[in-house]
Amino acid sequence: MSQVRIEEFTWNIEPASEEWRRRARLHLDTLTKPLGSLGRLEDIAVQVAAIRGEKLNDKPNKAVFVFAADHGVTEEGVSAYPSEVTRQMVLNFLAEGAAINVLARLHSVALHVVDVGVNTEFGPLPSLLSYKVRGGTRNMLREAAMSHEEVEKALAIGFTLGCDAADAGNTILAIGEMGIGNTTAASALTCALTGASAHLATGRGTGIEPVAYANKVRVVEAAVAKHCSPSNGLRPFELLRCLGGLEIAAMAGMVLAGASRRLVVVLDGFISTAAGAIAVGMAPNARDYLIAGHCSEESGHKLLLEYLNLLPVLSLGMRLGEGTGAVLAMPVIESAIALYHQMATFASAGISGATA
Amino acid sequence: MSQVRIEEFTWNIEPASEEWRRRARLHLDTLTKPLGSLGRLEDIAVQVAAIRGEKLNDKPNKAVFVFAADHGVTEEGVSAYPSEVTRQMVLNFLAEGAAINVLARLHSVALHVVDVGVNTEFGPLPSLLSYKVRGGTRNMLREAAMSHEEVEKALAIGFTLGCDAADAGNTILAIGEMGIGNTTAASALTCALTGASAHLATGRGTGIEPVAYANKVRVVEAAVAKHCSPSNGLRPFELLRCLGGLEIAAMAGMVLAGASRRLVVVLDGFISTAAGAIAVGMAPNARDYLIAGHCSEESGHKLLLEYLNLLPVLSLGMRLGEGTGAVLAMPVIESAIALYHQMATFASAGISGATA
Repeated sequence: MSQVRIEEFTWNIEPASEEWRRRARLHLDTLTKPLGSLGRLEDIAVQVAAIRGEKLNDKPNKAVFVFAADHGVTEEGVSAYPSEVTRQMVLNFLAEGAAINVLARLHSVALHVVDVGVNTEFGPLPSLLSYKVRGGTRNMLREAAMSHEEVEKALAIGFTLGCDAADAGNTILAIGEMGIGNTTAASALTCALTGASAHLATGRGTGIEPVAYANKVRVVEAAVAKHCSPSNGLRPFELLRCLGGLEIAAMAGMVLAGASRRLVVVLDGFISTAAGAIAVGMAPNARDYLIAGHCSEESGHKLLLEYLNLLPVLSLGMRLGEGTGAVLAMPVIESAIALYHQMATFASAGISGATA
Repeated sequence: MSQVRIEEFTWNIEPASEEWRRRARLHLDTLTKPLGSLGRLEDIAVQVAAIRGEKLNDKPNKAVFVFAADHGVTEEGVSAYPSEVTRQMVLNFLAEGAAINVLARLHSVALHVVDVGVNTEFGPLPSLLSYKVRGGTRNMLREAAMSHEEVEKALAIGFTLGCDAADAGNTILAIGEMGIGNTTAASALTCALTGASAHLATGRGTGIEPVAYANKVRVVEAAVAKHCSPSNGLRPFELLRCLGGLEIAAMAGMVLAGASRRLVVVLDGFISTAAGAIAVGMAPNARDYLIAGHCSEESGHKLLLEYLNLLPVLSLGMRLGEGTGAVLAMPVIESAIALYHQMATFASAGISGATA
């Protein structure tokens, strides 16, 4: 089995700047507001300053990438929707009819849809980024979901698109996904990464009923047991290969690109956070570049956010994916940046300081 | 003591439409997403539909009104900032340097600054709405904060501005405030409305230290004990008169106007929620029109939100006031409305439904 060169994707990921973190805190305390009264917005501004450094003044240019792929494990009956919905939803994205289209349009976020593994031939579609590695993963209950080469390819696709987005002037990237069956993959990854039980890490996904849910928990449990033996350990690349998905690998690649190019990377829900956790496993400094857009209703998402020690920006009970929660957090992130840059200081506004 | 005619402000406040609530739920379930997967966004869309009814298609036009006033109780040393900061911050609003200026600009919300009781003569300032009732309230520890006539006037100012905003085509109003000392008033109102102890209902406001905090709790406790005897009961108008503020009365008036004109009214933090609670006390149906923009760090805010049975949109640890939390919630509210109107249906997009 050939050694994968994840070094290519991780070699130049440095921590975000402590110096800029300190500078940003000092600046925030000069602004016309009681100390700390902007709460989480101040933390977000500080994080963005630490990420962007001297490029902090660049206009926030926002993009969301939605990676679509199918999952072999759907043959185990883990989803409320048939597998062809992945293809149908990709067409819905291209027709501008999905939730992510509405939100991206409203909040001026450029939307890119990437086929990294949908089980269909779309033919030529001008607005689809076609990078299909394979028509979906294998059934992880029977064998590893992907080969080494497939994981490398999918990682490289996300990484390259992330670098291209940086070159195009984007400063904030959101990652989203579409893939019937992918909450099952995310649950299995969550068990493997955090040690949580399959029951805790598994949610109702698109909305399965109790009997199907019990089956999904069993599938997750069996897949984790099959692939996570002490001999192969818990290396993130191997977890991704055995239990992940092509869209999860591509999102992990985009996280690594964002971190290496000092972009803000906004995670969406359970599945994109699983990709974030894999990326952080490969390059721990990547965590500094991540903002958790929201906390979804999937129980495993909370486990992963705790594992990554990330506080979500929003908690609106969403569980849709597509990047919707990440894009909805963008106005909050932009607000934090705008407040940092545009508020008057106590000195400039001639306002008295605290006396008590 | 003359009888106040709150009927003027409350007579035509009807409940939001149950019929539109039902229609909106049915419509949401046809959109291309798993049932209920937009979480709180669906609840917000349903509430807006119930409020706006056949006017649901109107473009969301957003305004925030910041009401400024001073508080006599500041002579008890309840705030970390001197009273003149109210005046200074009004000038900061007019100079576009405050947090609310930045957020209103970023999110296309028209900002209106109203002097309803600042303890200074501003002279002619074209962008200030000058409706000073009195240069601040009296010290509630010694006497009622306002006279009947002053409360009526302040309520009428907020009500009239709200009606004017409706006539001008606004569909979503946010209420915010500036007034050194007004968390003390809001804490006293919270105790009186909810029965909570002064300790529970009192927070650190702009950031007072422990000794000053203990003093603030004593002031709140004593003011509530002084004015809330069994004989005068708990009528909301009387509570407002004895323990409130001119900006709180004006915000309550604007809530009543918004509700009577079927506008969405977004509450900001602790003080504006106290105004919302007083308005709901006067006209219980007004609650249907309220959205809690966020939950602030002030402990009493949570008590009031529970009292009103409102779930906040955001929880970002903010405690600034000025309408900042309400305006920050606007992109989420607008997102809910846009998703409702713009998403494709399963039928129109040719997408398979759930099978399990």
